Amino acid sequence: MAQTQAAPPSGTSKQAPGIYRYKVSDFEVTAFHEGTVPRVIDDKFVVNAPLPEVQAALEKAFLPKDKINNTFTTLVVNTGRNLVAIDTGFADNGPPTVGQAWANMKAAGIDPARIDTVIISHFHGDHISGLRLKDGSAAYPNAQVMVPAAEWAFWMDDGRMNAAPEAARAGFATARRSFEPYGAKIARYEPGKELVPGITSVEAYGHSPGHTAFTIASGNGRLLVLSDASNLPALFVRQPDWSPVFDMDKDMARAARRRLLDMAAAERMQVAAYHFPFPATGFIAKQGNGFEFEPVLWSAIL
Amino acid sequence: MAQTQAAPPSGTSKQAPGIYRYKVSDFEVTAFHEGTVPRVIDDKFVVNAPLPEVQAALEKAFLPKDKINNTFTTLVVNTGRNLVAIDTGFADNGPPTVGQAWANMKAAGIDPARIDTVIISHFHGDHISGLRLKDGSAAYPNAQVMVPAAEWAFWMDDGRMNAAPEAARAGFATARRSFEPYGAKIARYEPGKELVPGITSVEAYGHSPGHTAFTIASGNGRLLVLSDASNLPALFVRQPDWSPVFDMDKDMARAARRRLLDMAAAERMQVAAYHFPFPATGFIAKQGNGFEFEPVLWSAIL
Repeated sequence: MAQTQAAPPSGTSKQAPGIYRYKVSDFEVTAFHEGTVPRVIDDKFVVNAPLPEVQAALEKAFLPKDKINNTFTTLVVNTGRNLVAIDTGFADNGPPTVGQAWANMKAAGIDPARIDTVIISHFHGDHISGLRLKDGSAAYPNAQVMVPAAEWAFWMDDGRMNAAPEAARAGFATARRSFEPYGAKIARYEPGKELVPGITSVEAYGHSPGHTAFTIASGNGRLLVLSDASNLPALFVRQPDWSPVFDMDKDMARAARRRLLDMAAAERMQVAAYHFPFPATGFIAKQGNGFEFEPVLWSAIL
Repeated sequence: MAQTQAAPPSGTSKQAPGIYRYKVSDFEVTAFHEGTVPRVIDDKFVVNAPLPEVQAALEKAFLPKDKINNTFTTLVVNTGRNLVAIDTGFADNGPPTVGQAWANMKAAGIDPARIDTVIISHFHGDHISGLRLKDGSAAYPNAQVMVPAAEWAFWMDDGRMNAAPEAARAGFATARRSFEPYGAKIARYEPGKELVPGITSVEAYGHSPGHTAFTIASGNGRLLVLSDASNLPALFVRQPDWSPVFDMDKDMARAARRRLLDMAAAERMQVAAYHFPFPATGFIAKQGNGFEFEPVLWSAIL
């Protein structure tokens, strides 16, 4: 059949940049794919469900049963008044499969120096490492950095760090290293506070001691940023009582997950979540004893 | 709160280009968002279901109840041996909300002059208009164009065109205009034929007289290209017996829809479909008397 010339060599192409824009009424949200880190699915991944049930849930979602690609999506919100980053990814501090949000942000024409506020949901490394570039400089040189007060109190407690087992100390070190360039520009916040006009903190403790969700409200538009209250929808939206190994206080995290998913379903609020598949935004519907995630339909129209 | 400088004006940004790459074993598929055309949801859109049921299905999927944005996704398949376009969109012949696939193809580094084969599923204007640019030239100057024989026989029949009511003649004219630049480079194909190595036609008559689906097979990988055998998943995957106004022979189209969705579900084959939400690829699961579409998880890893 027709073959007028050689096709380009396969396997040399790259994925298109992971950038997706959507509106919350007047606000403009840009989601950035940060990359993925593979995670073996063993009996330690979901700590309170038998491995065959977890594998069956993955198979039902047409996903591999033996590993997932844990995915990360950062947000920049242009409120018209503020240019706000929510969580940072790794920038140049992570493994080679991440750090794409940093490049994608620049590809989207967003200069990190113009970000005036960085809001942090919690201090796990995939959310804060990107505050500080490997050369020691502030990734967001002109930003105030807003952190959950309870999170700061936990991770910056030297006594707790020194008492932690060796394997648990990396998290404390990451927090110290990541915030170091910001000094006096760090502001601690409580739940239920408007952090910048239109963006409000929502208590979601459990995943980590001060883990926080957010509502973004503009006009009639509302977005619930779940942060890490849930994770891969095929597992932790459909079975909200399953606990991923990442949840530090399993009972509290499970209660927060149900509370936020219930709210999203009841109010039909659009949600965004850090570990949902890119572009990591959609809606939550009640389904049986759990929930179903309906991703938004990709639209070129803003 | 922190506002060190004005945020950029909202409302001036564009969506990221609609380009998504995925592999079918050794083959590389690139999906291009072509744009959308709004369509009012009235009692004529689904011809065999009461409007309130249609509206309820849209609401369940968190979509507006009064209109949909009919979306279009074209494909380019690099088999390593051939560079194949499947359906063309409108190029520069459509309303302002379409034609993006033409730009996206160039943004992805695919020169239309390097396409050696264009495979057409059927002759509706959103699938063939882009064969010919407005200036009269061939959009794919070095390509053989492969068309379903039954489709050619229907739309190129002057007697049928002349007997058609005035309102139905535009489709016949579009077919004549679109294929005009290709002359002897047009090849008619039957169902069940390998069109280029790895790409085989699958009979799916009904949506139009010669409407065709395709399997793309490489190594252990298989992709079922549904073409227009289904449409918006929230309506025509979940309720496969509903007939969109676009189906020319409703009974035959409904049978083809069920046959292909059943095959995809039974064999757990990845599917692509022209009117599914971008990137328009995923999996089909049996659900009750219908099916559920599970989109692929966006991945930066090819």
